[in-house]
Amino acid sequence: MAVYTQLGAEVLAILIAEFDVGALISAKGIAEGVSNSNWLLETEGRDGRGARFILTMYEFRIDITELPFFLGLLDHLAERGCPVPRTIHDREGRLYRMLDGKALALIEFLPGVSVSQPTPAQARAVGGALARMHLAAADYSGTRANGLGLEEWKRLAEACGSQGLASIDPSLAALVERELPLLERDWPTDLPRSVIHADLFPDNVLMLGDKVSGLIDFYFACTDITAYDVAVTHAAWCFDAEGRHFDPALSAGLLAGYEAVRPLSTAERAALPLLARGAAMRFTMTRAYDLMNTPADALVTRKDPLAFARRLEFYADPANAAVFAAS
Amino acid sequence: MAVYTQLGAEVLAILIAEFDVGALISAKGIAEGVSNSNWLLETEGRDGRGARFILTMYEFRIDITELPFFLGLLDHLAERGCPVPRTIHDREGRLYRMLDGKALALIEFLPGVSVSQPTPAQARAVGGALARMHLAAADYSGTRANGLGLEEWKRLAEACGSQGLASIDPSLAALVERELPLLERDWPTDLPRSVIHADLFPDNVLMLGDKVSGLIDFYFACTDITAYDVAVTHAAWCFDAEGRHFDPALSAGLLAGYEAVRPLSTAERAALPLLARGAAMRFTMTRAYDLMNTPADALVTRKDPLAFARRLEFYADPANAAVFAAS
Repeated sequence: MAVYTQLGAEVLAILIAEFDVGALISAKGIAEGVSNSNWLLETEGRDGRGARFILTMYEFRIDITELPFFLGLLDHLAERGCPVPRTIHDREGRLYRMLDGKALALIEFLPGVSVSQPTPAQARAVGGALARMHLAAADYSGTRANGLGLEEWKRLAEACGSQGLASIDPSLAALVERELPLLERDWPTDLPRSVIHADLFPDNVLMLGDKVSGLIDFYFACTDITAYDVAVTHAAWCFDAEGRHFDPALSAGLLAGYEAVRPLSTAERAALPLLARGAAMRFTMTRAYDLMNTPADALVTRKDPLAFARRLEFYADPANAAVFAAS
Repeated sequence: MAVYTQLGAEVLAILIAEFDVGALISAKGIAEGVSNSNWLLETEGRDGRGARFILTMYEFRIDITELPFFLGLLDHLAERGCPVPRTIHDREGRLYRMLDGKALALIEFLPGVSVSQPTPAQARAVGGALARMHLAAADYSGTRANGLGLEEWKRLAEACGSQGLASIDPSLAALVERELPLLERDWPTDLPRSVIHADLFPDNVLMLGDKVSGLIDFYFACTDITAYDVAVTHAAWCFDAEGRHFDPALSAGLLAGYEAVRPLSTAERAALPLLARGAAMRFTMTRAYDLMNTPADALVTRKDPLAFARRLEFYADPANAAVFAAS
């Protein structure tokens, strides 16, 4: 949540003139994005009736050579009817432009709000939207390795160290030491793969009532096990924020919504408990690492790794495997 | 620049239902306001054709009993054709509502962008808008003392202390000790008074080309010497950000634009050099105090007091008095 760079109205107006979207009418820096600065822009539009866009400046973490994968994916999915924001190409057809050594992309604005307490009907809609995204991404030509997969969880655990993890919570080191070898031993290698969102938290879904109006923030998208995306989304949607309470109705809604569009194979179903442990491990480790390595005065909010350690304990408990059993 | 409070979509939707503006379509936290959290909201509008608003939550510094002065002033000025955002009254006619002990107001969204390098034509337009605001405010019934006047500059100087000021810059303590008694001795008592904006920096003016489309952020507005507002606006618009370079063309444009609408009296003209020293002192002192008293890890940007100490030196130099001479 930050705007790291100030862009004056004069610079914005010159920048916007490079796109066929009409003159700039309004620009507000918005408090979204951890690695980006974002502005909500209004322009006169091509037809003079007004249009809105998100202008994103990539500040950290993003390798510019990967932008064509992310921005091209938005185009690909939007063309196939997925509710994702289109990338606005500039007058030369480019997906992004450079300013002061930073990449900038102009992206369609989508209506909708992010829910913080989803209902089962909303979870069902999100499941359906995720499945449609997986199907629509099947023929996307781009590929990108998952930089936050099992190997990275191990690397992050090592970087944190047992003492570091214990400093967050006495039980955290033991949990990670128990789970990591098991995930490594059993991680599936033969499940269907596709482009996955890999970060579909409620923050990254725009809704109008029970309808999904937007899937956004694809900057963790990568090529990986399709059902792992279901597991990530499950971990993101079916618990309270602290990970203390699992909501079976949200879980049932999400899975039913997904399967109404893309039924899971028997092997995918069987793998979900383990994939969900992996998903919970992914956020436990990145949050633990960020907590230990982000200065206290940084503008970003440091998120609690224990909220996902609790989910990991939940998914690791055999008594809860029934959550993923075919209904 | 911050959003201090997270408001979930569910809470926002309930809140918006208290106003006759249609259902919520979109909400983005915006990176504006030092003492407030602000959201740019889109709703269906009363006619279903869409409408936009700024929702402001008053977090710090604001005394809720003063909100009727600020919000009523917006209504008063908007009714008289000034480009200020109207306050949207709720279904019970209230100017603001309470949520979790904090006041919230829904305010009209205005188009326009804030310039960072104004042109003389833009300075002229701002001068005209300021003068029209002064005339329109003449029959506003509300009054509010200026909490950041001479008495407060003295209090802030004492709170900073000579050593504190010297720790910012070796010359700052001497400058303040030289100027404060002089301002106190000569501060005018018989000039016309009115409601003034008192903080009309380029950030607080929205422009479309050379036209002023909005005057915003009236939370320092108060009843004080009308020409002091001209002096504040002069200090805010006619220098580079660091206060090192004075731009005579911006100054001439601003004053000519103002006088085309509300000519200054001979006494006001004569007082402007001193009023401008006061204006520069006001921002020097508040910035010095904030610099010394804001934790380094706060979300707000601490502004440089020396940028206004330099303006103070400029205005105090008799060689520069001609800036305010009648043309």
